[in-house]
Amino acid sequence: MTNSNLITPEILRGTRDFLPEEMAKREYVLKKIVDVFRSFGYDTIETPVIEYLSTLTGQYGEEGSKLMYTFEDNGGRKIALRYDQTVPTARLVAANYKELPMPFKRYQISRVWRADRPAKGRYREFYQCDIDIIGTNSLLADAEVAKVIYSVLRTLGFQNFVIKWNSRRFINQILSNLEIPEKTQGDVIRIFDKLGKIGKNGVFEELSKILAKEKAEELLETMTLSGTFSEKLEKLKNYDTAEIREFHSLCENFGIPEENLEFDISLARGLDYYTGVIFEAILPDVEIGSVCGGGRYDDLCGRFMEEKLSGTGVSFGFDRLITAMEEKWLLQNIKLNSEVLVTYFDEGTLQYSQEIVNDLQNAQISSEIYFEAAKLGKQMKYADKKGIPFVIFCGSDEIKNDMVKIKMMKTGKEKIIPRTQLVQYFEGFSSETE
Amino acid sequence: MTNSNLITPEILRGTRDFLPEEMAKREYVLKKIVDVFRSFGYDTIETPVIEYLSTLTGQYGEEGSKLMYTFEDNGGRKIALRYDQTVPTARLVAANYKELPMPFKRYQISRVWRADRPAKGRYREFYQCDIDIIGTNSLLADAEVAKVIYSVLRTLGFQNFVIKWNSRRFINQILSNLEIPEKTQGDVIRIFDKLGKIGKNGVFEELSKILAKEKAEELLETMTLSGTFSEKLEKLKNYDTAEIREFHSLCENFGIPEENLEFDISLARGLDYYTGVIFEAILPDVEIGSVCGGGRYDDLCGRFMEEKLSGTGVSFGFDRLITAMEEKWLLQNIKLNSEVLVTYFDEGTLQYSQEIVNDLQNAQISSEIYFEAAKLGKQMKYADKKGIPFVIFCGSDEIKNDMVKIKMMKTGKEKIIPRTQLVQYFEGFSSETE
Repeated sequence: MTNSNLITPEILRGTRDFLPEEMAKREYVLKKIVDVFRSFGYDTIETPVIEYLSTLTGQYGEEGSKLMYTFEDNGGRKIALRYDQTVPTARLVAANYKELPMPFKRYQISRVWRADRPAKGRYREFYQCDIDIIGTNSLLADAEVAKVIYSVLRTLGFQNFVIKWNSRRFINQILSNLEIPEKTQGDVIRIFDKLGKIGKNGVFEELSKILAKEKAEELLETMTLSGTFSEKLEKLKNYDTAEIREFHSLCENFGIPEENLEFDISLARGLDYYTGVIFEAILPDVEIGSVCGGGRYDDLCGRFMEEKLSGTGVSFGFDRLITAMEEKWLLQNIKLNSEVLVTYFDEGTLQYSQEIVNDLQNAQISSEIYFEAAKLGKQMKYADKKGIPFVIFCGSDEIKNDMVKIKMMKTGKEKIIPRTQLVQYFEGFSSETE
Repeated sequence: MTNSNLITPEILRGTRDFLPEEMAKREYVLKKIVDVFRSFGYDTIETPVIEYLSTLTGQYGEEGSKLMYTFEDNGGRKIALRYDQTVPTARLVAANYKELPMPFKRYQISRVWRADRPAKGRYREFYQCDIDIIGTNSLLADAEVAKVIYSVLRTLGFQNFVIKWNSRRFINQILSNLEIPEKTQGDVIRIFDKLGKIGKNGVFEELSKILAKEKAEELLETMTLSGTFSEKLEKLKNYDTAEIREFHSLCENFGIPEENLEFDISLARGLDYYTGVIFEAILPDVEIGSVCGGGRYDDLCGRFMEEKLSGTGVSFGFDRLITAMEEKWLLQNIKLNSEVLVTYFDEGTLQYSQEIVNDLQNAQISSEIYFEAAKLGKQMKYADKKGIPFVIFCGSDEIKNDMVKIKMMKTGKEKIIPRTQLVQYFEGFSSETE
C-alpha cells in the first residue's frame, strides 16, 4: 500500500543537509578557528539574515544585483537575504559607532546566499568566516591579520602553506611609474588576477591588447619578480618600498616564518575596493585554489556614515578548508558525542541502568541509555552505528555484586569493575587518550 | 558638509543585531545548553534556511500559511524560509533513514522566520533550540527528555522551576470517560490551554458554552486536581494510570527531584499533533510564561515516508531563558574574549611588545596589541571599553631589564615582573579565579 500523497524529501540544488558525522567535523574545524580568533581578542556579532534590500543593493556590483535573493514581505517591504557579512557589519558599525570600542575587532561566521548556478564547490547557501579590524590605518593591524591567517592554518594542522601578500598602493606605484593611464589600471589589475589560471603567456597576451608591447613586457617582468624578499627589494630599488619593508618586518616580529610568507607583486585580487595591503593563502600541495583572501579597504562604512573608517580583514573559505583537511588526513577520528551506551536488559534491571547513566552524565561523561529492552545484538549495533566506544551491561549478576561490565567496542575486550570505580575508570581513560 | 546619499543603517522590525556584549551572553548560555545535550549523547544536524515551499506548506495549519516567508527564486521555484526545525528534520530523516542510527537523537539550534506582527518578546527572526528522539515509542525516551529539561535548567543556574507534564492519552481517557464527543475534544483541549491566562472561572465559562454545566464542572474538577503525586493518583483510581505511574517512576530513577516535577492534568498544549506525554517548564518566581515545551508526536515523518516513526522532544525558548537569567542575576560577569592589552609606546619598543603578545597568545592567553602609538590614556580607555582586565606596558626601562609592567584595571595596582614569568603569572591568575 503506497501513500500517493507522500512528498519527496528533497532540498534545493546548491543547499545542503549536514548529517551528524559531517557536522562533527565542521564543528571541530569551527571551534579550532574560533579559538584562534578569540586568542587575538576578536569578539563576535550577529546580524539578521533578512535585511532591507536598500541596505544591500548597489554594494556588490552588477553580479551582486543578479545573484541576490530578493522578495517582498507581507507588508510590501523589499527584502534581501544576506549576500555577504561585510555590508551588514558596516551597517551595524555605523548604527552603533559611539557604543563600540574603536578600533573594532570582530569575527563572524554565518551563512550567506547567492542565486548562483550550483557547481562543484559552489553553493547557493554557504558559510563565510571573517575577521575584520575597523577604524585604524595602522599597518600593524594588517600584520595582525597575516598572523591570524598563519595561526589558523597552523592550528588546523597545515604545514605547507604560503601567505601571499602585496600592496595595492605599491601596484599603483608601479602602474604610475610605467605611465599606465588611470582608466586602464583597473583592467590591468583584473588581468593579473587571472595569472594563476592563464599563466604568464596568457597575461602577456591580454596586456598586449591594451598596452604597448614594451610596456606590457616591462610590467610583466616587474610584477612577476622572483627570489627571496631581499632579492626582490634589491631589484625594486627604484621604487619607494618603505611600506613593503615595514609590513614585512612587522610580520617577522609576530613570528611568521619566512617560508610561510611571500611578497608576491603579481597578487592583485580582483575586487575594486581594496586600497592597501592585500592577502591570499594557498596550500601548494592541495589543488584547491586559495583558502582565504582579504586586505585593506578604506571608507568601509561610507554608505552609512560621514566618518571615514578604514578596515582590514580576511575571509576564510570554510568549505575549502574542510576539503583540504580531508585531503591531508587532518580530519581523522572525529567522533560523535556519545562515549558510553548503557544497555537495557529488562524492567528488573532498568533502575540500576538508569542510575549508572546518571552517574556518568553527572561526571560530564557523555553517555546514553538504550530506550528499549531489545536484543543485546540490536543495542550493540546501535552503539556501532554511532561509533560509541564503550558499552555497559548491568545484568542481575552485576547488580547483585554492585558491579558493571564494560565492553570496549574496538577490541571486544570486557572488564567487570565495581560500580564505585566507574566514573574514575572513564576519567582515567579520557586523560590517557587525550 | 553632509552626504545626502547616506543610507540610514536600520534593520527590519522583528529582527535584531547583536553586539559583542550581548553575543558573549548568548554564547555562554548556548554553550551550557549544548554541553548538556552532548552529555546525553545528542548530536547535531543542519538543514538549509531556504526550502521548497512544497516541503513546508500545509504543515503548520492556517497560521503557518499566513506567517511563512515565501518567494520565487530566479528559476521560478517557490521557496520558503525555515518556519520551524521539526518539519525540516522530518524531511532529513526521511531522506537519510537507512543511514541514520535509530532511534535518532539530535539537537538543533538555529534561526526560523515568521512574518508575525513584532511585539515585546515576539520576533520575525529568532532561534529555536530543540532536542528530539525519533524512532521509538518507549516512555523511557520521554523520561529522558524530562531529565534533559531538568539538567538544562539546573546547569543554567535556576533553582526554582517546575517541569509540568501530562499525557494526551490520559486526557483522552478523561474526555472519553465523560462521554465528550470526539469532535468537541479538540476545542476542550484548546480551552484548557488557556487556563494560565483566563483562570479556572474563564475556563468554566468557555466550557459551559460547548458542554452541559454538570459535565463542565466534573471535567474542570478532574483536570485541576491538586495535591501530591500520590494524592492525585488516589483521586484518579477509577482511571487506568499505568502510563502515568510508569513515567513518574522513570523520572524518579533519572534523579529528577519531586519538587521539580508536577503531574498537571490541566496541561493541554494547544498543538494538535501531540499524542503522548507532553511537557512544559515554568519558573514560578519569574513572570515570563513557560521556558520550554514539547511532547510526543506519532508519525512524525508521515508526510515524507511510509514508515511510521514516533518522536518525542522539547523546544527551549532561548530568548526567554536569557531574559529569565538576567532577571535572576545569572548572567553577571560575562566578559568579552580579550584578557590582556599590550600597549604600543613607540617604534623603538614595538618589537618587544609584539613578542610579548606572541608569548601570551602561544600560551592560549587571549591578548591583543594596540595598533597605534597613541597616548597611553587612549589605549587604557580602549581596554576599559572592552573590559580587558590587564594592561601591559613595555617602556625602554622595562625592555632594558627584560621586565614587563602589568596593570590590573579593576584595582589600578601595578606590578613589574620578569618577562620569563609572564605566562606563568596569567596562568596562575586564571586558575585562581575560575
